[in-house]
Amino acid sequence: MKLEVVTIGTELLLGLTPDTNAAELGRALAAAGIEVVRHSSVADRPEAIRAAVADALDRTGFVITTGGLGPTRDDMTKHAVAELFGKSLQLNEAVLRSLEERFRRLGRTMPAINRSQAEVPTGATVLPNPRGTAPGLWIEQHGRVVVLLPGVPSEMRGLLVEEVLPRLATRGSGLVIRSRTVRTTGIAESALAERVGAIEDVIAPVTLAYLPSTDGVDLRATAWQLPENEVERRLDAIVSLLHERAGEHWYGDDGADLAATVLQQLRTRKTRLAVAESCTGGLLGGRITAIPGSSDVFAGGVVAYDDAVKRQMLDVSASLLDTYGAVSEDVARAMVVGALHRFGVGAGLAVTGIAGPSGGSSEKPVGTVWLAAAFGGQTRALKRIFPGDRSEIRARAAQAALDLMRRLIGETHS
Amino acid sequence: MKLEVVTIGTELLLGLTPDTNAAELGRALAAAGIEVVRHSSVADRPEAIRAAVADALDRTGFVITTGGLGPTRDDMTKHAVAELFGKSLQLNEAVLRSLEERFRRLGRTMPAINRSQAEVPTGATVLPNPRGTAPGLWIEQHGRVVVLLPGVPSEMRGLLVEEVLPRLATRGSGLVIRSRTVRTTGIAESALAERVGAIEDVIAPVTLAYLPSTDGVDLRATAWQLPENEVERRLDAIVSLLHERAGEHWYGDDGADLAATVLQQLRTRKTRLAVAESCTGGLLGGRITAIPGSSDVFAGGVVAYDDAVKRQMLDVSASLLDTYGAVSEDVARAMVVGALHRFGVGAGLAVTGIAGPSGGSSEKPVGTVWLAAAFGGQTRALKRIFPGDRSEIRARAAQAALDLMRRLIGETHS
Repeated sequence: MKLEVVTIGTELLLGLTPDTNAAELGRALAAAGIEVVRHSSVADRPEAIRAAVADALDRTGFVITTGGLGPTRDDMTKHAVAELFGKSLQLNEAVLRSLEERFRRLGRTMPAINRSQAEVPTGATVLPNPRGTAPGLWIEQHGRVVVLLPGVPSEMRGLLVEEVLPRLATRGSGLVIRSRTVRTTGIAESALAERVGAIEDVIAPVTLAYLPSTDGVDLRATAWQLPENEVERRLDAIVSLLHERAGEHWYGDDGADLAATVLQQLRTRKTRLAVAESCTGGLLGGRITAIPGSSDVFAGGVVAYDDAVKRQMLDVSASLLDTYGAVSEDVARAMVVGALHRFGVGAGLAVTGIAGPSGGSSEKPVGTVWLAAAFGGQTRALKRIFPGDRSEIRARAAQAALDLMRRLIGETHS
Repeated sequence: MKLEVVTIGTELLLGLTPDTNAAELGRALAAAGIEVVRHSSVADRPEAIRAAVADALDRTGFVITTGGLGPTRDDMTKHAVAELFGKSLQLNEAVLRSLEERFRRLGRTMPAINRSQAEVPTGATVLPNPRGTAPGLWIEQHGRVVVLLPGVPSEMRGLLVEEVLPRLATRGSGLVIRSRTVRTTGIAESALAERVGAIEDVIAPVTLAYLPSTDGVDLRATAWQLPENEVERRLDAIVSLLHERAGEHWYGDDGADLAATVLQQLRTRKTRLAVAESCTGGLLGGRITAIPGSSDVFAGGVVAYDDAVKRQMLDVSASLLDTYGAVSEDVARAMVVGALHRFGVGAGLAVTGIAGPSGGSSEKPVGTVWLAAAFGGQTRALKRIFPGDRSEIRARAAQAALDLMRRLIGETHS
């Protein structure tokens, strides 16, 4: 089953409000095996709404709209869609009574303006909305369906789950759409694609997407409208294949966070962690402590932004700093050793680099970062030159530091 | 001037990735006086892309797309749009050289797969993308324009600002849509609304929106399609009014970052800053060092996640920790004094709290945070109980710490 979503609201086109309803509808419908083939957003204007809904109906015959059902003058969805179906609006006594009852319960008298919310296109099914004043509407004629939902996210979600999805289930085929994500890091999209190879034809009708971010490159496999039992079997096989091809770059699946992976590796090895950060300035500690329960593994860190701090709080010698500069293998290694010593822990990470926008040179351009990891008596250092702006370079550096630790632990037989 | 936006990516329709590009394009184009009349999203399928772009072109004659310009097989936008214009793709030597140069700079050889990114529809203008491997493309024929931008948000933004908006400026009407934002913190939305009062009718046709986030509450005033000189005059007056009503809660306008504000306050007072973080785990340092040039003011910090670290690296006495607990006024004050002393600086911030999800008690529920600031020989402490989940509590705590410093400096005549 396929449909289109039309989200209505001038604020969406101005970019002033993120369109969370479109994303939420996409997730919920995909989980129910329904493909959203196009999503459109239009402003609170009757002709724009009518045109967008008509276009979408012509393509798929089934449209869900959100927004424009409120009591004020800029709420025009109901009128526009009623006109499209050649229907008039009539006062629905049951809706009016429930609206008045709702205001009474809140100790208020219903303002006259809300009376318009009890007007319903003739023949439409009312979808009760206990969370707000705008009921949903299901309009069906000659096999064409438009479902009107309110724009307030909690009201939209309530109506979707309680009224729309159950009705769609009875129309559905029993087929589902499901995605699984294999997360990789430390490899570029193009290099990963070469390792994965041209498997698209082999895995069809499952599709594969490459999603690069500062965390690395995610591989997302999506199975489209297959029976539930078959979809899991096929995705399991494809995910296994992707794990194998991604090799040492694979660090987790779906919502996996590399910080959580590293914390778990250290937890099972009963080793505590400390960090020494220069260019990331606390971001690495922030990533680690974002994970609930990190305190049993993570002791703390030093943000050694100033070279004097590197000397005084991490025991990096002035001669190393003078000879090699703060962004160097020797200083990264000295920082991690200092962190191990100062915090009395068995695992450490250090980051020192040039996040920009200034401070780069031809020898050490902006993006140059030295990372060091210590675990199980071993220390490993790595130089990377990261692309992007200051914030991307810092995010990539924190992720690369975690990845260095993940690999070091994985290769250490302790 | 009117146009349509088509964002391309299966992940958008599945609701797996929020469509930040559509919102960002909406904001930037509105600011330039250009109305986005419809936004559509389609999956990574050539026929879907071709149909959506063709529909949008038929309506407005001008379309901006994002996404689908990567090197892998799921990137199909360029082919689909070239076909729509009846154009073929040709290898562009200049693009190829800049791609190879980019890989060389990062110390890598360009994989063969990236060669496809140097293929350009005949007659298209290449929009150079220094942030990534996918150049933007401007295709214009018989008065119809399609601009293809990459989907990676930072790359999209760079091309939009540097290449697209300047070209659009030469086509516009002279009327602009403009928003100004007044940023406040330390006050709830409803309390702020009472202070601001019912000014909506007075300021019309400028509209006012309240936007709460973990940073505080932003007040956004938007003027719709007015002449440039009038819009600035009206917004100036409204922004002044909002400053006055928000009072001491106002800390900056538009993109102002409270960390930058505090750094500037300290810079003019020639005072350096250090931080001592427990529950924020490095986030506060991360916020501060996100500001380019922070190194002249920010010395560094200690992430004292473990109480032993609070003792050993911040000189917090064991008896204070035993008597009052780590989340207490006395420990927050001791942490900030320890930071001043260890880093040898004149200004310090300390944060200690319970970010959850576990660790709360009836006396100190999850969200309880003690903050301390030191500046000009004074120390001030503040207890807050923040709502939200772990990540929101931590973000609010970092912002509140910065705000405590802003107010302390503001009230200190040094």
